[in-house]
Amino acid sequence: MSARELLALDATAQREALAAGRVTAVALAEAYLEAIEAARAINAYLAVDPEWTLAAARAADARLIAGTAGPLEGLPIAVKDNLDAEGWRTTAGMATRRDRLHAAHDAHAVARLREAGAVILGKLNLHEGALGADNDNPHFGACHNPHRHGYTPGGSSGGSGAAVAANLCAAALGTDSMGSVRIPASYCGVFGLKPSFGLVSPRGGVVVSRRLDHVGPLARSARDLGLLVEAIAGFDPECAESRRVPLDPPRRGPLAIGVPDLSAIDVDADVRAAFEAGLERLCALGHRIHPLPGPAIEPGRLRRAGLLVCEAEMLVEHAADWAARRGDFSPALAAMLAWAESKSARDFAAADRLLDAGAVTMQRWLAACDVLAWPTTPQRAFAFGTAVPASQADLTCLANMAGVPALSLPLPVAAGELPIGLQLIGPVGSERTLIALAEAFAAGSAD
Amino acid sequence: MSARELLALDATAQREALAAGRVTAVALAEAYLEAIEAARAINAYLAVDPEWTLAAARAADARLIAGTAGPLEGLPIAVKDNLDAEGWRTTAGMATRRDRLHAAHDAHAVARLREAGAVILGKLNLHEGALGADNDNPHFGACHNPHRHGYTPGGSSGGSGAAVAANLCAAALGTDSMGSVRIPASYCGVFGLKPSFGLVSPRGGVVVSRRLDHVGPLARSARDLGLLVEAIAGFDPECAESRRVPLDPPRRGPLAIGVPDLSAIDVDADVRAAFEAGLERLCALGHRIHPLPGPAIEPGRLRRAGLLVCEAEMLVEHAADWAARRGDFSPALAAMLAWAESKSARDFAAADRLLDAGAVTMQRWLAACDVLAWPTTPQRAFAFGTAVPASQADLTCLANMAGVPALSLPLPVAAGELPIGLQLIGPVGSERTLIALAEAFAAGSAD
Repeated sequence: MSARELLALDATAQREALAAGRVTAVALAEAYLEAIEAARAINAYLAVDPEWTLAAARAADARLIAGTAGPLEGLPIAVKDNLDAEGWRTTAGMATRRDRLHAAHDAHAVARLREAGAVILGKLNLHEGALGADNDNPHFGACHNPHRHGYTPGGSSGGSGAAVAANLCAAALGTDSMGSVRIPASYCGVFGLKPSFGLVSPRGGVVVSRRLDHVGPLARSARDLGLLVEAIAGFDPECAESRRVPLDPPRRGPLAIGVPDLSAIDVDADVRAAFEAGLERLCALGHRIHPLPGPAIEPGRLRRAGLLVCEAEMLVEHAADWAARRGDFSPALAAMLAWAESKSARDFAAADRLLDAGAVTMQRWLAACDVLAWPTTPQRAFAFGTAVPASQADLTCLANMAGVPALSLPLPVAAGELPIGLQLIGPVGSERTLIALAEAFAAGSAD
Repeated sequence: MSARELLALDATAQREALAAGRVTAVALAEAYLEAIEAARAINAYLAVDPEWTLAAARAADARLIAGTAGPLEGLPIAVKDNLDAEGWRTTAGMATRRDRLHAAHDAHAVARLREAGAVILGKLNLHEGALGADNDNPHFGACHNPHRHGYTPGGSSGGSGAAVAANLCAAALGTDSMGSVRIPASYCGVFGLKPSFGLVSPRGGVVVSRRLDHVGPLARSARDLGLLVEAIAGFDPECAESRRVPLDPPRRGPLAIGVPDLSAIDVDADVRAAFEAGLERLCALGHRIHPLPGPAIEPGRLRRAGLLVCEAEMLVEHAADWAARRGDFSPALAAMLAWAESKSARDFAAADRLLDAGAVTMQRWLAACDVLAWPTTPQRAFAFGTAVPASQADLTCLANMAGVPALSLPLPVAAGELPIGLQLIGPVGSERTLIALAEAFAAGSAD
């Protein structure tokens, strides 16, 4: 099998090919670098460094031959450009950081990738500052949805979603504070996982919010999400947001799938229809649907509270640039930060408490079922230049507030249609159950 | 054995006497109610309700006879008056809440106490609003240290420490946001435990800070702390701060006891000497001392950050009273809240991030040892009217920031001297190890 033929396979299959010697890490990396070059119109990557990447691939090949391969040995993985990778800039999609020195250290998750043998393929486009979900980046150019040029890939990890969907990496890392892994997974038709809070250390990332930030993988299969998340998980004493999260074994047998009432949320009809068909497939897999009430709190209030927390924390994270180079912030981001600047400590505390109400909504639902299912986003990807729907993150942000794992997987859609995502959510530590369920769903057969 | 003779025993011994029928719950409750009446000068209790308490004791006796006793059946437990107990006022030591309606529901921890069979004996004095550590309460009167009248019992759970030390309850609940369980345990010469964050749900308490609040027991023995904390622990889906925390089995065998450098902290010479003697006892128990660097961050900065977070959250918690009845706040508390009112959302976010630095300091220490030991407070209890030492919580607040369990136990002191506390701190979920170590220390023999 040629390296070229492998590019569209999932990471797990590529790993098998590498382990069996059917392809070398160098050949795979070279093929991806060529594909990235050929797909520049998508603008998924903000930076590649072929020399550096191929050196890492050669080292991986040596370990594969020596029999000392790690679990991700030789896999070309790309990283959202708000996570440090030693020797690369970390722009966070911000002009203020364009001429920043290259990172001296890896982010914790990136270091874990390398320890597991992954070959870092490049740094991925994102929404400016990781705060926003269309990835129409004013400083580095829009990232396009591989399914339809001129359409958003979602965000903020838009480059991650697009690179995975367009077969421009074996898998990618993203970050998710209100939905930023799952929204691009949904819009791009790939798999994305926001893990339990603290399971993956966020250290070495450009902070949006200490409470809401999560690092997670995007991939072409559910099993790949497991492969990646187990490689990058682990307690990090250097990070106050890191947690020891024991991962439960996957739950087999019939699950009670909780489905909250969506009537209070403005969900497009085509998304509703695809979601209903998805529920039927879950039933066909032997699970049963358990209806639940809708959110006890108005989504717009939660959204505003979440944004205030993020914006106020970004004022701290970007304090020096905000003071010295305000003109380098886009008008949209500057307006958000300026708004937060007018808010009081008490406003922040009140917003934080509102996030607690969001967390309790989620915890109540999860107390009444095994796994929760609802759409990932209320709408499909939209064209750049049209109004950004305010509700983009209304179905994703509750999982950030509650710190529970949430996975987005593609629902079946007709050929040529834009993707729609199904979101599966479980209690803290239930990642393996969500992944097994998503795998069974994608296979269309009972597990 | 008479009920009177039992009052000074620990809760575990009282439970054995109840189970063996050597005393009834009613007799025990009556004896405590008499003792409380006789010790009014201490002012540990803000409220008792003998009729109500004795009815609960009668029900406990019925279950003891029927063989359906819970793990705390018949034990008279008192509760800090910032935790709701159904049918009682919850003053939080604040004049604004003096005429508040009686609570309609139990706080989660109080409900767990009752489910386990405990008899609620009354509501305990505390520092106004649980923000401060001398319990010189301007609205309900000072609570006195049973070891020396006119001296502080510590705070904010001063009534809890005093009631346990003066044998006015079998054990008590307190709350701890910067040290409020451990400081009174230290000053009053009893045992106190701040559990892992979220192990005990704080729901139904008057909030100081969602990030820093912990509910924990004070008792006359280490084993009692275990008895109580295991009874009140448990995930509470109705509370965003509740966590599923698996408790590790107690670690046996020699432990590496980490001892941070205290030179940057203003610790009194007598406290240092008692602490050094305590370390010798730990060595005599077979453990070894592992010196660690001092805190990487100036305690005063952390204290100020912690206070801002608490004060801003209290502005939200007490918003209606702050708007309508400002004169009912003491000048000291009003000044703190007014100061926080002048702070921005960005200041709050920056303070929150500073708490992260405190958490990392703690996590680094714990990564380098099994259990950390240092004094609970830098000084002994002081006389009311003398200046309150600013450093009171400097040795306790790091454990709140990191969310790790921390236990205070009495160090040996000469007869007639005021108590000094030894603090033992371990990683999340290590409560049983801390309790076993404290038990062995108190017994003065290897476990």
